[in-house]
Amino acid sequence: MAENKPPQGRIMALELAPGPLDQAMQAYFAKCEEKLGFVPNVLHAYSFDLAKLKAFVAMADDLMLAPSGLSKLEREMIAVVVSCANHCHYCLVAHGAAVRRLSADPVLAETLVANYRAAKFDRRTRTMLDFCWKLTETPWLIEEDDRQALRTAGFSERDIWDIAAVAGFFAMSNRISSATAKEPNREYYSMHR
Amino acid sequence: MAENKPPQGRIMALELAPGPLDQAMQAYFAKCEEKLGFVPNVLHAYSFDLAKLKAFVAMADDLMLAPSGLSKLEREMIAVVVSCANHCHYCLVAHGAAVRRLSADPVLAETLVANYRAAKFDRRTRTMLDFCWKLTETPWLIEEDDRQALRTAGFSERDIWDIAAVAGFFAMSNRISSATAKEPNREYYSMHR
Amino acid sequence: MAENKPPQGRIMALELAPGPLDQAMQAYFAKCEEKLGFVPNVLHAYSFDLAKLKAFVAMADDLMLAPSGLSKLEREMIAVVVSCANHCHYCLVAHGAAVRRLSADPVLAETLVANYRAAKFDRRTRTMLDFCWKLTETPWLIEEDDRQALRTAGFSERDIWDIAAVAGFFAMSNRISSATAKEPNREYYSMHR
Amino acid sequence: MAENKPPQGRIMALELAPGPLDQAMQAYFAKCEEKLGFVPNVLHAYSFDLAKLKAFVAMADDLMLAPSGLSKLEREMIAVVVSCANHCHYCLVAHGAAVRRLSADPVLAETLVANYRAAKFDRRTRTMLDFCWKLTETPWLIEEDDRQALRTAGFSERDIWDIAAVAGFFAMSNRISSATAKEPNREYYSMHR
Amino acid sequence: MAENKPPQGRIMALELAPGPLDQAMQAYFAKCEEKLGFVPNVLHAYSFDLAKLKAFVAMADDLMLAPSGLSKLEREMIAVVVSCANHCHYCLVAHGAAVRRLSADPVLAETLVANYRAAKFDRRTRTMLDFCWKLTETPWLIEEDDRQALRTAGFSERDIWDIAAVAGFFAMSNRISSATAKEPNREYYSMHR
Amino acid sequence: MAENKPPQGRIMALELAPGPLDQAMQAYFAKCEEKLGFVPNVLHAYSFDLAKLKAFVAMADDLMLAPSGLSKLEREMIAVVVSCANHCHYCLVAHGAAVRRLSADPVLAETLVANYRAAKFDRRTRTMLDFCWKLTETPWLIEEDDRQALRTAGFSERDIWDIAAVAGFFAMSNRISSATAKEPNREYYSMHR
Repeated sequence: MAENKPPQGRIMALELAPGPLDQAMQAYFAKCEEKLGFVPNVLHAYSFDLAKLKAFVAMADDLMLAPSGLSKLEREMIAVVVSCANHCHYCLVAHGAAVRRLSADPVLAETLVANYRAAKFDRRTRTMLDFCWKLTETPWLIEEDDRQALRTAGFSERDIWDIAAVAGFFAMSNRISSATAKEPNREYYSMHR
Repeated sequence: MAENKPPQGRIMALELAPGPLDQAMQAYFAKCEEKLGFVPNVLHAYSFDLAKLKAFVAMADDLMLAPSGLSKLEREMIAVVVSCANHCHYCLVAHGAAVRRLSADPVLAETLVANYRAAKFDRRTRTMLDFCWKLTETPWLIEEDDRQALRTAGFSERDIWDIAAVAGFFAMSNRISSATAKEPNREYYSMHR
Repeated sequence: MAENKPPQGRIMALELAPGPLDQAMQAYFAKCEEKLGFVPNVLHAYSFDLAKLKAFVAMADDLMLAPSGLSKLEREMIAVVVSCANHCHYCLVAHGAAVRRLSADPVLAETLVANYRAAKFDRRTRTMLDFCWKLTETPWLIEEDDRQALRTAGFSERDIWDIAAVAGFFAMSNRISSATAKEPNREYYSMHR
Repeated sequence: MAENKPPQGRIMALELAPGPLDQAMQAYFAKCEEKLGFVPNVLHAYSFDLAKLKAFVAMADDLMLAPSGLSKLEREMIAVVVSCANHCHYCLVAHGAAVRRLSADPVLAETLVANYRAAKFDRRTRTMLDFCWKLTETPWLIEEDDRQALRTAGFSERDIWDIAAVAGFFAMSNRISSATAKEPNREYYSMHR
Repeated sequence: MAENKPPQGRIMALELAPGPLDQAMQAYFAKCEEKLGFVPNVLHAYSFDLAKLKAFVAMADDLMLAPSGLSKLEREMIAVVVSCANHCHYCLVAHGAAVRRLSADPVLAETLVANYRAAKFDRRTRTMLDFCWKLTETPWLIEEDDRQALRTAGFSERDIWDIAAVAGFFAMSNRISSATAKEPNREYYSMHR
Repeated sequence: MAENKPPQGRIMALELAPGPLDQAMQAYFAKCEEKLGFVPNVLHAYSFDLAKLKAFVAMADDLMLAPSGLSKLEREMIAVVVSCANHCHYCLVAHGAAVRRLSADPVLAETLVANYRAAKFDRRTRTMLDFCWKLTETPWLIEEDDRQALRTAGFSERDIWDIAAVAGFFAMSNRISSATAKEPNREYYSMHR
């Protein structure tokens, strides 16, 4: 097992020493370094326990990168909008940067961080984000009418699943970040401006 | 690849045809049948896509079954309390049954479904559930004082992670269930009464 | 005046010694024992003061049992839905049991306890419960449109009164139960499962 | 049975024709006329059904007028504070007038209608009203600490019941008033200024 | 510089000694005395700093008195409705009196203080007040549909600005009043009854 | 009167043609161009009416620039935190840039936009921002204890006024921006990164 160099400084309020990574995760961390220039702190945070790290990576990558009727940008936009409703510092900074990277549009990213309703979206995007906001704030009020609005805006059954799954994932991720006071990597703040 | 018998009737509002299971998932579904008498509808719901199913199972089982400073019952109690705050039908029914199974105490289970504050918990349990309720309703207000209350009640750094991770997982799961109008298996309602 | 045997254990957080019952209330308590097998703790709670007990019984029985365009089951469904919005332990347990008794449908009862929107109601029932939820959460927003929706769903002027009166009664009863930490009788949990 | 003269104009949004009053209620209405100069519209509203009218009067009079550790003014102050939280037009106008009558202090009454926290109350009154506000807004959060705060402020077990019962009664009454759009009698607005 | 006689008693929780007034403000205070019989405490509160006082007076008078498509009464109605949503004691008392003065209708004023939805407004007024309530409670949800509703109810672009500006001004004024516990002048309570 | 060149494109949803500026405002706009490189759209928005523009500028400049116990950076931090609670696009973008300018710390600015609780503030700053958040969300709950917390953190009576006045000003400004869908100047997004 290779060494897992801890990042400089505390990355979250909890003191959980990183454990050894297996080859797959070593390769994964190396790829992050290569592509992003750093390993996201969310991965460092999970690295105290290899099984939890691998489960998180498997789910996150499937949701955000696997083939879907939603573009990668749409999925990152959902991440930012859910994180806005939850005032999640880590996710707004990290996924705000991802929106800038995928859209090459810093104005879009900062508008989503502030209030997605201020952006001039087409019906598809707006309906998707309205659904995510409602699902975030009052999941018990989501009903067939809400799903029907997505269908009318052009989304398939599978797309609706993906919208719900991405919004749900950030409901989780926001809470783990807030509960552990996870710090965003400093690089995120200035990337893709 | 073996066949994946769909359950009788609709299990959720979305029409997503189940795909083939690999051997591991076939074995997993078989084990559910053997232990519970049925395959939970959450698994049927995810079975339209093998990668998503496997990622969900890996994360759920790690969180709810892997070694932890939290007992399995404590983890199921968190599931019910988060689901109560979110009025999640599927999770209240399924995890209410799990609390009955693990505690052999239907009164406890129904009290958690209604309002955990009405139960006479010791400080450890109460502090844990108060943290989960706050993390569910207002994640942006969670701070060091909240973590410190958990430490004072006897929880370790790793325990705090597990509390947050389980509460976060049901923030996700509640929303996917509500967004897809997932039906609980009928067996849950009467189990372990 | 006959004796009023106190129940075993504390029935609420307040220490209020039960007073003597008059003949009418003795007969009423005896009928409860005969029909239910026990005297509901709400009656024990009020029995510290005969006038208050009698006023409560008169109003509760008129609302829940007197002739009305609403069936008894509908009135109990309102009780559960209001109590769900208020997370009232006593009322969810006691009136959940009443829904099971009147409907012979434990699935219905537990669904109402969790989230009535997950049940497949016809328009009449759904409109009635939507009205009650709104009246419970934001009474100041109830207006003619809301009443008109009830009329369109087939309710008469008198039915609307009854819906409001039952929902209002549980707004009261939930608060008195929560303020006094009233315990449901243990028998309720398993009745009519 | 004597005639029950309906008031001029609509008294609520529902059209429910007043029924005949029995002797006791005739006497009661006559006493209202004598003391107040009019019959409160809440009584007209209930008079479509004698049993409901009598149950309401019995409970309201017991709560507001029977011997209690709470003064009549304290009970009316609770009525106004609960009605403020619920923005109940009928009850704010009618019970605001009652506070003016009992306190001879229109400034107190209007301050309670606006925000009781702006009044300079002693600890007893303030603790009582804080309890009522919390019980009104979030009954599920009321716990032993809240009751203990009342005890520390000098309230007995029976007083706590009375506080809860009056606050609960207006939770009900506010909702029935809002649901039926009940109009306050015009006389209330200018009485005891 | 002329003397600025402080009012009797504390006018707010903060101790900020009034400074000297310039001629314009002396004349302004004198005019208040002449017209109202007293200087509103909001002016005394600001008089610790002449620049702040003059900026406040300039903005308030422009908004409430300058030519506008909104009548002065409409502007005062907005003040009361916003202050109702914010439970602002000072503004409800002072602007409730202004509504009585301008409308000669104490019933209207007290209804607005309680819940404007209970008044029988024409579409114009109702749409305006609904817009203000939403802008007060959830400004981030205001969108083109809300502006369009105002246009459909007959308001011009400039009118919409004025509605927003008056509602916004009381969002500010309510908060400064609450933050400083500003007392309404006693005269307001009984004026124009 | 000099010409007031309108900016390119719509600056808000309302169509209000800019009117002529007087000399003072011409000079003011020129100074903005010189210092910032552009005239903030909030000024263009108000320029349909010279009196309103001048009143706004007088109040804004007094609050944000005049001598105060609060530094200019502290006042801009309040602007961002209030605007975060209100999800105000215009103010988050414009005042986020101001925080970057005054602090030379883009991390601070983006953290405030996301959730000020994630920043590591000393007690003074944290107490100030907690007060502002509470004043923004629930002004009716602000009381002497809240003011006392500010005093204990080192703020004077005058400082408390200034904190309340700045927070109140953005309660207003956020609402006017949202009500008119005011667009931030594009330059803000990239300034001082």
